[in-house]
Amino acid sequence: MSKGEATRETILDAAGELVRTVGFAGMSIGTLATSTRLSKSGLYAHFKSKETLQLEVLEHAKARFLHEVVIPAVAAPRGEPRVRAMFENKLRWNSQPGGCIFVAAASELDDQPGPARDRVVRDQRDWLDSLAQVFGTGITEGHFRADADPEQLAFELDGVMLSYHHCKRLLGDGTAESRARTAFESLLARARA
Amino acid sequence: MSKGEATRETILDAAGELVRTVGFAGMSIGTLATSTRLSKSGLYAHFKSKETLQLEVLEHAKARFLHEVVIPAVAAPRGEPRVRAMFENKLRWNSQPGGCIFVAAASELDDQPGPARDRVVRDQRDWLDSLAQVFGTGITEGHFRADADPEQLAFELDGVMLSYHHCKRLLGDGTAESRARTAFESLLARARA
Repeated sequence: MSKGEATRETILDAAGELVRTVGFAGMSIGTLATSTRLSKSGLYAHFKSKETLQLEVLEHAKARFLHEVVIPAVAAPRGEPRVRAMFENKLRWNSQPGGCIFVAAASELDDQPGPARDRVVRDQRDWLDSLAQVFGTGITEGHFRADADPEQLAFELDGVMLSYHHCKRLLGDGTAESRARTAFESLLARARA
Repeated sequence: MSKGEATRETILDAAGELVRTVGFAGMSIGTLATSTRLSKSGLYAHFKSKETLQLEVLEHAKARFLHEVVIPAVAAPRGEPRVRAMFENKLRWNSQPGGCIFVAAASELDDQPGPARDRVVRDQRDWLDSLAQVFGTGITEGHFRADADPEQLAFELDGVMLSYHHCKRLLGDGTAESRARTAFESLLARARA
């Protein structure tokens, strides 16, 4: 990685952290300059506008999400082990400081049409599709019932993850993880052949 | 209701709509003056600071939530009918323009300590407690298993509602409601005696 690319990574990580804690509304070239200790003009050299910065933050987060959640899960054996890997990886992702950037972005941008919202919609669709696909491998492998509905299972698992995010981050509820695990095991039991 | 109280209600409804669409970060005396066509000085006469305005918006939303979701549900017979009424009322609440103000506020404020965050935490705890209590009436009435866990059921039902909120508002997914209903019926089936 060149020095320029490394700086860019550092900036995008810091920007992602700002979005997770204060939202896109609180993330500007100014607040980013403060958190990275770079000059505003230096930041403008990397990102021409707030809009391109927003899109690059989302793109960067998506790459990190694939790298930390989806790709290692797909390395697990097809079927139930892969579903379990997706769940564990997403649980870890939701537990990082500031929580999940996509949950923050979805809630902030759902009524603000534009390229950033379009990107969040695409990423959320990709996530639900990945979950449904992984549940689908459980049907092919005979771990789950032939008439199980992968999209419904994806919808419900996403709900469990959102409830966990809510309970853990907002309420600081120490039981959030065990509640999420109980809900997940119940979902698997219902899916099983 | 006096003219002053009526104006106050109008302002708080408009402020709640702003929070649902652009968040607390985008709701200020300035944007509120534009949306209500009242003067900034007129608004300052009602709310002394942005912070008191935020708290009053949440208080007003809570009153509306109790009036539209919780109180009419508690009027339904104890047990399963009351759980169904909570679900239907919350589904309607989440479907209003801009979605649920508490979902928006939770995501925006989860990393911003202060009185507004404290209020959102209290309201979310009250909501989960109300849900658990209503599931509890289902146990007493013999509709649900004696060993059903009301807090776990509340956690899972809140997840279904959050997933619905996400799919419907962000993705504009036409299947969101039927997915939520399927998940809800499955939750009830698991709770039943």
